[in-house]
Formats: sequence, C-alpha cells, structure tokens
Amino acid sequence: MTIRSNRKTIKPRARDLGIPFDGTPGSLNAITDVAGVEVGHSTIIRREGKLVVGRGPVRTGVTAIVPRGRRDAAAIFAGYFALNGNGEMTGTAWIEESGLLTTPIMITNTHSVGVVRDAVIGWQVRNRLMSQPWSLPVVAETYDGLLNDIDGFHVKAEHAWEALDGARRGRVAEGCVGGGTGMIGYGWKGGIGTASRRLDRKSGGYTIGILVQLNCGRPSELTIAGVPVGHELGPDRDPFASQELGSIIIVAATDAPLMPHQLKRIARRLTIGLARTGSTSGNGSGDLFIAFSTANAPSKKHTDFENVKMLRNSRMDPLFAAAVQATEEAIVNALVAAETMTGINSYRVEALRHDRLRDVLSKYRRLDKSR
Amino acid sequence: MTIRSNRKTIKPRARDLGIPFDGTPGSLNAITDVAGVEVGHSTIIRREGKLVVGRGPVRTGVTAIVPRGRRDAAAIFAGYFALNGNGEMTGTAWIEESGLLTTPIMITNTHSVGVVRDAVIGWQVRNRLMSQPWSLPVVAETYDGLLNDIDGFHVKAEHAWEALDGARRGRVAEGCVGGGTGMIGYGWKGGIGTASRRLDRKSGGYTIGILVQLNCGRPSELTIAGVPVGHELGPDRDPFASQELGSIIIVAATDAPLMPHQLKRIARRLTIGLARTGSTSGNGSGDLFIAFSTANAPSKKHTDFENVKMLRNSRMDPLFAAAVQATEEAIVNALVAAETMTGINSYRVEALRHDRLRDVLSKYRRLDKSR
Amino acid sequence: MTIRSNRKTIKPRARDLGIPFDGTPGSLNAITDVAGVEVGHSTIIRREGKLVVGRGPVRTGVTAIVPRGRRDAAAIFAGYFALNGNGEMTGTAWIEESGLLTTPIMITNTHSVGVVRDAVIGWQVRNRLMSQPWSLPVVAETYDGLLNDIDGFHVKAEHAWEALDGARRGRVAEGCVGGGTGMIGYGWKGGIGTASRRLDRKSGGYTIGILVQLNCGRPSELTIAGVPVGHELGPDRDPFASQELGSIIIVAATDAPLMPHQLKRIARRLTIGLARTGSTSGNGSGDLFIAFSTANAPSKKHTDFENVKMLRNSRMDPLFAAAVQATEEAIVNALVAAETMTGINSYRVEALRHDRLRDVLSKYRRLDKSR
Amino acid sequence: MTIRSNRKTIKPRARDLGIPFDGTPGSLNAITDVAGVEVGHSTIIRREGKLVVGRGPVRTGVTAIVPRGRRDAAAIFAGYFALNGNGEMTGTAWIEESGLLTTPIMITNTHSVGVVRDAVIGWQVRNRLMSQPWSLPVVAETYDGLLNDIDGFHVKAEHAWEALDGARRGRVAEGCVGGGTGMIGYGWKGGIGTASRRLDRKSGGYTIGILVQLNCGRPSELTIAGVPVGHELGPDRDPFASQELGSIIIVAATDAPLMPHQLKRIARRLTIGLARTGSTSGNGSGDLFIAFSTANAPSKKHTDFENVKMLRNSRMDPLFAAAVQATEEAIVNALVAAETMTGINSYRVEALRHDRLRDVLSKYRRLDKSR
Repeated sequence: MTIRSNRKTIKPRARDLGIPFDGTPGSLNAITDVAGVEVGHSTIIRREGKLVVGRGPVRTGVTAIVPRGRRDAAAIFAGYFALNGNGEMTGTAWIEESGLLTTPIMITNTHSVGVVRDAVIGWQVRNRLMSQPWSLPVVAETYDGLLNDIDGFHVKAEHAWEALDGARRGRVAEGCVGGGTGMIGYGWKGGIGTASRRLDRKSGGYTIGILVQLNCGRPSELTIAGVPVGHELGPDRDPFASQELGSIIIVAATDAPLMPHQLKRIARRLTIGLARTGSTSGNGSGDLFIAFSTANAPSKKHTDFENVKMLRNSRMDPLFAAAVQATEEAIVNALVAAETMTGINSYRVEALRHDRLRDVLSKYRRLDKSR
Repeated sequence: MTIRSNRKTIKPRARDLGIPFDGTPGSLNAITDVAGVEVGHSTIIRREGKLVVGRGPVRTGVTAIVPRGRRDAAAIFAGYFALNGNGEMTGTAWIEESGLLTTPIMITNTHSVGVVRDAVIGWQVRNRLMSQPWSLPVVAETYDGLLNDIDGFHVKAEHAWEALDGARRGRVAEGCVGGGTGMIGYGWKGGIGTASRRLDRKSGGYTIGILVQLNCGRPSELTIAGVPVGHELGPDRDPFASQELGSIIIVAATDAPLMPHQLKRIARRLTIGLARTGSTSGNGSGDLFIAFSTANAPSKKHTDFENVKMLRNSRMDPLFAAAVQATEEAIVNALVAAETMTGINSYRVEALRHDRLRDVLSKYRRLDKSR
Repeated sequence: MTIRSNRKTIKPRARDLGIPFDGTPGSLNAITDVAGVEVGHSTIIRREGKLVVGRGPVRTGVTAIVPRGRRDAAAIFAGYFALNGNGEMTGTAWIEESGLLTTPIMITNTHSVGVVRDAVIGWQVRNRLMSQPWSLPVVAETYDGLLNDIDGFHVKAEHAWEALDGARRGRVAEGCVGGGTGMIGYGWKGGIGTASRRLDRKSGGYTIGILVQLNCGRPSELTIAGVPVGHELGPDRDPFASQELGSIIIVAATDAPLMPHQLKRIARRLTIGLARTGSTSGNGSGDLFIAFSTANAPSKKHTDFENVKMLRNSRMDPLFAAAVQATEEAIVNALVAAETMTGINSYRVEALRHDRLRDVLSKYRRLDKSR
Repeated sequence: MTIRSNRKTIKPRARDLGIPFDGTPGSLNAITDVAGVEVGHSTIIRREGKLVVGRGPVRTGVTAIVPRGRRDAAAIFAGYFALNGNGEMTGTAWIEESGLLTTPIMITNTHSVGVVRDAVIGWQVRNRLMSQPWSLPVVAETYDGLLNDIDGFHVKAEHAWEALDGARRGRVAEGCVGGGTGMIGYGWKGGIGTASRRLDRKSGGYTIGILVQLNCGRPSELTIAGVPVGHELGPDRDPFASQELGSIIIVAATDAPLMPHQLKRIARRLTIGLARTGSTSGNGSGDLFIAFSTANAPSKKHTDFENVKMLRNSRMDPLFAAAVQATEEAIVNALVAAETMTGINSYRVEALRHDRLRDVLSKYRRLDKSR
C-alpha cells in the first residue's frame, strides 16, 4: 500500500534549530491552534526510476483543511487574494461574491484539481453536508511535475476522501506529505508547513494559524531571518530548479471575528510573510492566498438576518503582524521538515541541511543559541 | 447509445419569428462567425422516471468553445467579469494575471466542472497542445439538478473529449444540447444560444460572437424586445422554477484586436445584454462572463516581445453595442430553440411557445410581421 | 444672486405621465425615503452667450448626499462598482479597504472634484465631524462642458458648503439642479433624478433609494418602459450630443443591514437599471456607482468590536430587483424633470417633451392611461 | 520666501553608507534613469512654534512625476494596486478601465489632494496638454499632520504648478522635499526617496525606476538589509510615532514595453520591496502603488489602432526582482536623506543617524566596508 497519511514525526522544527521569529506561537505552532480547524493528508508515493506516464513514479497527494471540523457544514466568512495568478484556486468567485467559505479547502497538484473538486462534492453529498443543492468547492494547487508523474493523473477521488476523513485537530505533519509531497521550495525540497501566532489579551487574545504548500522561489533568493541564505549556500544548483516552475498556496485561519473584506486585508498581507523568505513572485509562480474566520458561524435558525461580531479595523494591526510572522515561519518550517526525495527519472531534490543553515545564521549573528 | 452531439436542426431562430433586434448579424448569426472559433457539444440523455442517484435520469452534457481551432494552442488575449459569483469558472486567476487564454472554454453542469477540467489537460497532453508543462483550463458551469441526476456524476472525461474533438466551424446547435441540455431559462426550457454582430466598414468591420448557456431568470422577469413577456404569459408557473436556482455563462469572441483590459470592458458590458432580457441577477444566479480576441496570436518566434495591434479605446463603442445586442439575441435564441423536456422524477419544463410569444409581441406592436 | 438651491417644484414626475414602472415606491419616491438621508444642492447659473473661459456662461453646481444627517459623522458600510471608469469618484480605495463610508457623497462637474473634496474636509473640521485626524471624502463627477464654462473653475468651496449645509430630508429637487445643472441625458436635457422602492413586510420592509446624476447615453439608445423612444423621436439631433461625452453617477441608499461585500452586490446591479434605459456604457461614459447602508451605525463605545446585523444573502433578491427598478425610474425622472437650457456659445439642449413621450408609449401600448 | 524646490544636495545616499543592495542601479540611481521621466518638487516650510490652524507652522509640499516630459501629453500604459486603501490616489478608475495614464502623477498631503488635482487640469488647459475635453489627474497623498498644519490648507494651485514647471531630468532631491517635506518613516524623519535598476542586456537592458513618498512603518519594524534595525535602535521612541498614522506612495517607471495588465503585475510586487523594510501595512497606512511604462507612446496618426510592443510574460522575472530591489533602496534612501525636523507645537522628528545605522549593520555583518 503506497498511500501514507498523517505521518507523525518528531523532527525538529524551524525554531528548534534556533532560527529567530517574531511573535508568540500557539501551543502547537500550527493552523490547528485555531479551534475547530482540522487537517488531513493523503500522501501517494509509488515506484522509482524512469518516467512512464500513467505508471509513475508518483510523488503527490492531497491536503484537506476543514475549518470547523468534518461534521460542521457552516458557511463562514472568508477572503481571497491572488498575488500572482499563475495557478488555480477554484471556488473563489463565490467567496468574493458572498464572503462565504462553504466547503473544506483542498490542496493538490496542478493537474488533479478537478478530480479533487468533484470528489469534495461527492463527499458532501454522502455525508449530508450540502447546505444548498449545489456546491462550489475550494481546491488549490501547485506543480509537482519535476518529481511526480503529473500527467499520469494518479490522484483519485479516494485520495481526496482519505484526506477529508483523516482530518484531525492536533499536530500537523509537515514536509513531504499530502499535497506537498512532491513540491520544491527555493531549490530545496519543499512541501507543507504550518505555524501560528497567539495575540496577547490586550490585543484580543485571538489566534491566527497558517498552512502553506511551498513550491516557489529561486534558490538565490532564499532569505531566513533576514539572512541571505540563498547567496550563502552556493549558486543555483540545478538548471530546472533555477526556473520558477513553482507556486505557493497560503491558507490563513483565525478565530478573530473578521468580516469578508477584513479577511481580504489579511490575505493581501500574506504577501509580506512570503516576501520575508525572499521570493519576488516570479511569472511562473501561482501565489494564491485565502483567509477564513471560524467566528460568526451562522445560527441554525432560519431568520432573515444574522447577528455577527466585527472586529474594528483599528484593532487589526496585531493580526496583520501575526499573519506575516506565522507565514514566514510556516514557510521555513516546510523547508526544515522536508526530506530529500528522488522522483521521476531519478531526479533528486535535496533537503535543506539543518547544520549548514545554522552555520549561515550564526555567521550573521542571527542564530538563537539557546536552542 | 445515449450520447448525441452536434445535432443539425432546421428550427426557426428568434429573428425568424419576427422578434426585432438591433444591429447586423454575421452570416451564421453565431459565435462561429468569428473566424477560427469552433464549437462542439456532447449531449447526454439517458433514462426516464424516478431519480436514482448514480443511475439517472440523465439530462446533461458538455460544450466546448475552441478559440482558434483544435490544432492551434496559441495563447490569446482574454478578459473576465463576474456579475454574480455564485458559480464557477476555473482558470480565471491566470486570465486576470497574464491576460491570456491558453485552453478551450468548456461549459458543463455544476458538479462536473472537475472531471471536465482534468480531461482538458489530458486532451492537451495527448494532442501535444501544452505550451508549458502545466495547464489551467477554463471550465464554467450552470446547475441542471432540476432535470438531471447531477449528484450521479454522469459526465466523464470521454464526454469532454467528444465535445472537443467534435468542435467545428459553421452552424452551432442550440437549445437542449451540450452543457445546456438540462438548463432552464426564465422558467422555460433553456440551454445553449448563440448570435453575432458584424460591424460596418467604418467601424472596422469586426465581428463579435456570443454563446450563452442560459439557466437563469425568474419567469415574471422575462423581457423580449422590451416587451414584458413574463408578465403576459401568466404567473410563475412552478414553485421550483420561481426560485433563482440558475445561472448564465456568457462567452464573447471577437476578431477585433483588443488588449486584455479592453476585453474586460467587453465582458463587463455583457451584463447589459442580459439585462435586456429581464434578469436582475438573483443571489442564486452565477453570472460569469468571458471575452476573448482571436487577433494578435503570438508569433512562433522566440523573441522577447510580441508586436500586437490594439484598437483605440475611442473606437470601442460599436463593439460595446454589438456585444450587448448579440447577447440579448443569443439568450432569446436559446429559449426559442429549446424543446420541452422531462427529467428526474418526471419533472417537466415547457418550451416557450413560439405562437404565444408572437402574440404577446404583436400586442405591444413589437412583432416584425415581414418575418 | 445666481446661486439657487433646493428649488421646490410641482412638476410632474415620470410616473405622473403614465410611464409604468415595477415595484412599490416609498412615500416620496426619493432617496430621502431612506431614514436619515439628506440631500442638498448648490446650483450655479450665471451669464449668457459666448464662452469666455473664467467668466462663463456658468451652468453647474454641487449636490450633497448626507447618509445619516449632517450632525452624524458615523462611519457606515458601503460598496463601490465601476461599470466604466472614465470618470472620478474619490475616496473609493478606502471604501474598498475598510468597507466604510466616512464622509458625505458629493457630485459636481469633472473639473471641480478637487475643490469640492478639500471643501468637505474643511467643513468636517469646522463642524467637528472628523472621526480620525484625516479624511478621504467621496466626490464624483460628470462632464458639463457642452453647456458650462467648465475650464473656468466656477465651483468654489462655498458652493460645496451650501450644498452640505442645505441638505434636508423630504422632497428632492430634480432636473437642472446641483451637480446636475448642466448635464445631458440621451441627447435631452438631463441632471438629477431620484426614486425609491419599499419592500413588502415579507421581504423585510426595507427601503432602497436611488439618486442619479444623469449625463450619459446616445439619443438613439433611449429606452423607456421597454419602448425604443430614441428610435421613435427621430435621428440623433446633434453632432455633439451623439457622441458619448457623458457619464452617470448612481448613488444607492438602503436601511437594509448589508455588509460591505453585499453593498458591492447592490452596486454591481445598478448596471441593470441603467441598461433598462438603453445605455451601452460607451467609452466616454464614466459610469461609477456607490451603495451604502444606514443600518449598523457604530456604537459610541470604544469596544474592540461591533455587533452588527447582516441580511442573509439568500434574502437579497428583492433588494436587487428594487435597486434595478428605482435606478430605471430615477433616470427617467431626471429626464422628465429637466428643462430646456441654453449655455455656452448659446448651445441649447431641449427637454424631453412630455406629450411626445406619452405618444410614443401609447403607440407601443405601454402608457398607463389611468394617470 | 518660504518655498524651496529642487534643492541640490551632496548628501550620502544609502549605498554610500555601505548598505548592501541587490541588483545594478542606473547612472543616477533614480526614477529619472528612465528616459523622459521628469521630477519636480515644491517645498513649503513656514513658521515655527505653536499650531494656529491656517497660519502654521507649515511643513508640506508637492512632488510632480512627469512620465515623458512636460511637453508630451501622450497617454501611456499604467497599472495600479492598493495594498492598503487607507489613502487616496485619484484617477485610478480611468487607469483601471483604459490602461492609460494621461496626466502627471502628483503627490502631496492628505488634505491638499483636491487643490492639486484641479490645478493639474488648469495647467493642462493653459499649456494645451488636454488630449480630450476633460481630464482625470492622478494625485496621491500621505498624512503630514504631525509636523504640518494640515487643516490650514497651505498648499495652493501655485505650488502644484511650481512642481510641474520645475520638473527636470537628472538628479532627484530626496528627503524633506516636495510632498515628502513633513513625512515620517518608521518613526524617523521620512520623505521622498528614489532608486533604479538597469537590467543586463540578456534581460533586455530595460530600466526600472522607483520614487516613494515614505510616511509609514512602526519604529520596531524597521528592517534594513535584513537586519532588525528597529529592534536594535531602541524601543518605540514616541507615542505618536508608534501609531501607524502614515502611508506610503510608490511610483514605478520603466521603459520596458509592458501592457496595462503587466504593469499591474509590477505594481502588486512593490509590496515585496516595502516588506523588505519591515512594514506589515498597518490599518492606518494607505499603501497605494502605481506603475507606468514610457514605451509604446501612441502615434500621432489618427488610425483606428495602435501598433504596440509587449514584453512576454515569461520575460518579466528580472523586472519583478528589479522593482523589488529598487523599492527597498528608495525607501532606505528616503530615511538616509531626510534631516531632523521640528514642526507644529515644536514636535520634533529625528533623522536616522548614519553612524548608528552603520554600527547596527556591522554588528550583523551586513555592512559593506568597502564604502
């Protein structure tokens, strides 16, 4: 059986290496610190060697982010932003129009968005989670065709269902799992990363969590804690990796009571977190961001209107900073968690070596040596 | 065999009934009047009677609009507008970002967008029509669940391929065909409609063609040639149909040399054509529009830049008017072409009766009796 | 004294002529039917004859729409849409970002937007109506340079203040007043028009009011109650008027508790009301729309969040229809109220003759003869 | 006489201090490295001491960026992006609609946008630079009310004309000049900054230039060359400055032949340059960006269409990186050039001390000691 999901790991995370980050994380330092949020992965790894389209090798998967748990079909507020639209996130027209997210958020590879999308509808129908007769699922992607037989269409409805049914609170597996299995970041092995920030009481005590599927960035651009890591760790190591074939999907969750237009404000600022890791959002990089709030779940009553809480705009600054900080850390977490992988035609992508990273940070006096 | 496609018909069209429209149509009065544009349908009609999800009855399909013919994978300029985002059109983030349409445009039912999307990629790979390693197809939808077993997922990749491979220049089948098979417009049987306008030489001699998948509108709203047809043809006839469960997809094609931002101007004005038929774009109606230009196909040379022609903004007024006129006529053509259909649970939707429509227009002195 | 404002009139309005409109208006059939909304005009008419830039003739003015009365500086929810951006509406970046309207809405001529904008700030400072240290006023415009010495910059801060200080509930002067003084609609004399709709109790009993500054449309396009009035009342009568030099500003007010993204939905649909009068939104026509809700005024308490009511999206259809209907009627009201005017270089624009309009409607059996 | 403009300076710039930046600047390292671009300032500094609204002290001004020189009224392509819309940039609806910039770009204080806007029209009329009967100038702002009597409305039409008539190629004065006179950046004295990048021949040899009016950022956020300068240079020094009352306007000019949608791509990425200096785009910060291309000036012939060159999207990456790099440097240039200023009520804002900045960079081994 080649499908593995929700692998538990005890690997160090970015801050365990002594990388300094601003702000205070939640207890898991993960998107699941936002109460209700569940994450599930379906990881598909099959065969080695030469690419035979339709047979593999396969290095791909599906990640599901379920905002308020698998049994709660509540429509919640959401907002969307495309920093660079060279990618796909289905369902955004409805988010823009209604301000509402009415399905889980799925992330997979570029050529499997369709199968996952329809599979979500099938799953909603089967589990009686349709709030209206039709559904417009949110499915995003990045391109894993350097490591994966992407034109072989190996993701099936069952993989989407595995990710959905396996979604859990608690720790989130990072690196080469789920939709992130075959991804590459800044020339190193990338994938799934997550982080969170908890605001102090004065700022409302809200939590904001981030999950990224990291597949973007040119090697020379990589910046960690302000340090030009990409420049230090040698020139672009690979003709393929030096092209921007990648993308990044960033999902932000919060329990702060934000309206749709305020969630768009959050989504727009995720750019800043990405920027801190060095990307200049190249032409080929589909950089699509979504933010949702688990607050303000609709009442079950069939009234004409809802009573909702709205955080004042003037109180949003700590959330903006927290979203930026957690995005930066989630991206670095993805790089730190990912392991070297060999894929189609024995193409091999190295993991970012922790010791070398620490050396570079130390050189620039940015290593927190208490770690 | 239950799949029928590209049915040739000799049915009267809207203007054959004496309905007056402004402007001068192209020779076919169809989107295929724009040189290069090909249209194909895959129509799926199977079983009668009680709904058994997964078995039918089936009343659905797929329509393909291929901008420059099936063998030309050229990226062409396009623009997008969401009047009401309660629907799906994949691939729009890339159109907004790049200004380019790089795939055919597909239209199907709401729950089959995914299968059609991935099928387009498979078709592109097989036919060597990928201009880069990944593809972000444009697939739109409206909801046919009143007549069709939509949760049975009867559309398969083969149907998308049939529509693509069957795409042809020339006459376009209208009414209950392709993606429009199970659709409803203003309470009457709806579906696919098309029309075109040709500008006079002084205005550049350009052609603009429209294709709609009509599934929107409350019965009482229906307006044709300014006449309140909906009010005249009785009260809302059906509790289901009186709700806005529908949507409309409008595709505009032109050979005028328009830039992406100018095509967005065209797309935005398609609202006006829809408005002429009475819709107020209800909450449930996903009204998504796309416009593309077949001019300015990229050179094959791998130069750093393209030489493109751009129509001056100050010369666009005739195109705006033509787009509005052709949209209005395409919608009425869909109603005039569609035939009474019985679907799931013997639910029956009547065709708009031509004689009654003529009577109403005549009453308001809007019937062109030379027809 | 050449400044006249808030002229009381007993002229017939569009429905007094027997023109049929859908829906039920509020008691005044004006934007001021929305409780709290005040409107004021400053009308500047000076000199006759040959244009001497800086001396006149002057045919211009300023209109102020004050959402919750002149003493209430509350920030309220608003949304914005540009059908055709060949115009100016200042302050929209902040509306898009914050969802909030924090100033009155002013309408004037194209070359006086600046003076009116800064004058609003001066008025806010003087009246202690600044909710923060800076202000970003909303000022829109249309072009009156066919009748008015627009390059003479005759609008002064005092005119903006006169419109603001004169803002009142109750009847709203229409036609050649305020910002609408020198405007032209469909080749006839245009200007300010207003109308409203009140929903029945089942639909929430909300009111929606519209105010337009009508300056757009080619003569041949004019459509009233579905009747091709422009075609019937002769060919384009004037080489100047046949060009689209005009624009239309549409302001929608409602007491329905709508969120910013829902007000954008309303704003987008104002296109449909405009479409009913025949415009195809020509290149030269700056068609800019804004919608605001007087519900959900912020509490005075300095809490971190607001408790707000939000109408469900699924309950918005009656508001969509009402907004469309009132926009259509407000435009026709502007034409019906406006009087023939002679401006610079003795250029003369005729009022739409009521008797001829009635004749045309009667010919097409669209005249309500009970009027 | 209190108006000073276009002051020549021999002050060191950021890279003269040894701050490392990526990329290769143009010969002036200024927006004027883009051929044709002219910049002019009008600086208004008057009185000391206690604020008397209407009398001063005055610390403000106007900056003019003229894309192709004062005698060339050509409409050129442009694109716009609002990272945070708590600000004003007039004229953007027309840029979004037409893709065209048809006026100079002006920057001033928040409460003087109006007077500058109308003054531009007056200047265009007087200099016969109107390409159509009306004009929709682009005027942006940031808030200088901590140092300047902003409610005194000291900017007059004459100041706008001084900036326009004084616009020149060549070196650009930075710091406390023009619109930047009274601005604050990251708690230090801010103002105008500029920088440029020239691409190598392989990348097309294009130039991109940036000009910023820097008034944003919390002190603790300030980051230079990846170094946490804000953290190092002590806690927030000032209760006023620690609030985000500021904003930033970023103007990008290039000679690369970019279409309007491509210039929006550039504008969107200016966020990344800002991010490199530490801002998280707080609620109060109106962060509005505009990009234009001096290529593709329209022909004088009255043909129906233009022949334009368009850089391929796949060739844009070097421009994206260059825009980011030049934005980062322009912001630091503004801080390095600005001098300590005392304004209303003797409020004093310190200049960033060059020696302390060098010390901090040296500590983190980011100082280029060859400088």
